Amino acid sequence: MELLKKKIREEGKIIGDSILKVDGFINHQMDVRLFNEMGKEFKERFKGERIDKILTIEASGIGIATIIAQYFDYVPVVFAKKSLASNLDNELYHSNVHSFTKNKDYDVVVSKRFINKGERILIIDDFLANGCAACGLIDIVKQGEAEPVAVGIIIEKGFQPGRKVIEGLGVKVESLAIIDKIENGQVLFK
Amino acid sequence: MELLKKKIREEGKIIGDSILKVDGFINHQMDVRLFNEMGKEFKERFKGERIDKILTIEASGIGIATIIAQYFDYVPVVFAKKSLASNLDNELYHSNVHSFTKNKDYDVVVSKRFINKGERILIIDDFLANGCAACGLIDIVKQGEAEPVAVGIIIEKGFQPGRKVIEGLGVKVESLAIIDKIENGQVLFK
Repeated sequence: MELLKKKIREEGKIIGDSILKVDGFINHQMDVRLFNEMGKEFKERFKGERIDKILTIEASGIGIATIIAQYFDYVPVVFAKKSLASNLDNELYHSNVHSFTKNKDYDVVVSKRFINKGERILIIDDFLANGCAACGLIDIVKQGEAEPVAVGIIIEKGFQPGRKVIEGLGVKVESLAIIDKIENGQVLFK
Repeated sequence: MELLKKKIREEGKIIGDSILKVDGFINHQMDVRLFNEMGKEFKERFKGERIDKILTIEASGIGIATIIAQYFDYVPVVFAKKSLASNLDNELYHSNVHSFTKNKDYDVVVSKRFINKGERILIIDDFLANGCAACGLIDIVKQGEAEPVAVGIIIEKGFQPGRKVIEGLGVKVESLAIIDKIENGQVLFK
């Protein structure tokens, strides 16, 4: 998606040789007009697919997922919650997710009431790197006997294994921008 | 807002005599069509006011704030982050917020880059009870020498002191539904 790549080139901040900060328009301050363009793009990529629900994870996935839902006939959006305590609540699906960024394990939880058998669910997240969050969400969708239609990502780090991990689970990945590498303070896209 | 009150009556879950759960349409699963109606209602209530930015707090404020921004000419939305560690980062505004629900203190932080002198900022949150989160956000807006135009709330617990606390700081409160009391498993609105 050219508009997004342009925005990343112009306003993304690069730290070292693997960190890209997009907190000016994606995950701290949010550009809602840009999110609407992302919604149109995802709709185009999933043309003809039945989507019953969108699943994302707090916090930075929520704004994007909410706007995207408008392009999928306003389907419900569910956000998984991160908990540091292992949650034994019987009314929740949960999955253990490791965060490499924070070097912590989270128990990611979703109420069983919001994932229903047979539902076709689109998973949305802002970044794909190692794929841990997405795998946790796929795990939860499968626990609910629903179907993970695809994982939709805003920015994929193509030099990290996330895509392979998700595709290995038999789930399609659609990313709006795939970074090939970060070099000399510049982002190079695939 | 009648549509919201109807939804709360029909789909809200009451636990004991002070807890209302709206996780089926506001803060776990989200009804994006309803959020759009909220956006229209807030636009009506702030007709003629200049709003430069919307500020909310993770996680459940984000979806609502993002949709609402569409009715305010797509102004940027910033979400404050909750941190359990006291954050000494010099690039952040921070404010200490006590959560009565979780009985914890949070350091609520916003990058200094995203609150600018003179900006007129609308603060949005899903619930108002004791007003702690809203006060933290007002504090941050003032640290940035910006102006808190108002606090916009989806559901206000009218039997708790939040409104008085915020108005005491000289900031207006606009709530879409104000609960007078919860009695015999029913929500009574003001």
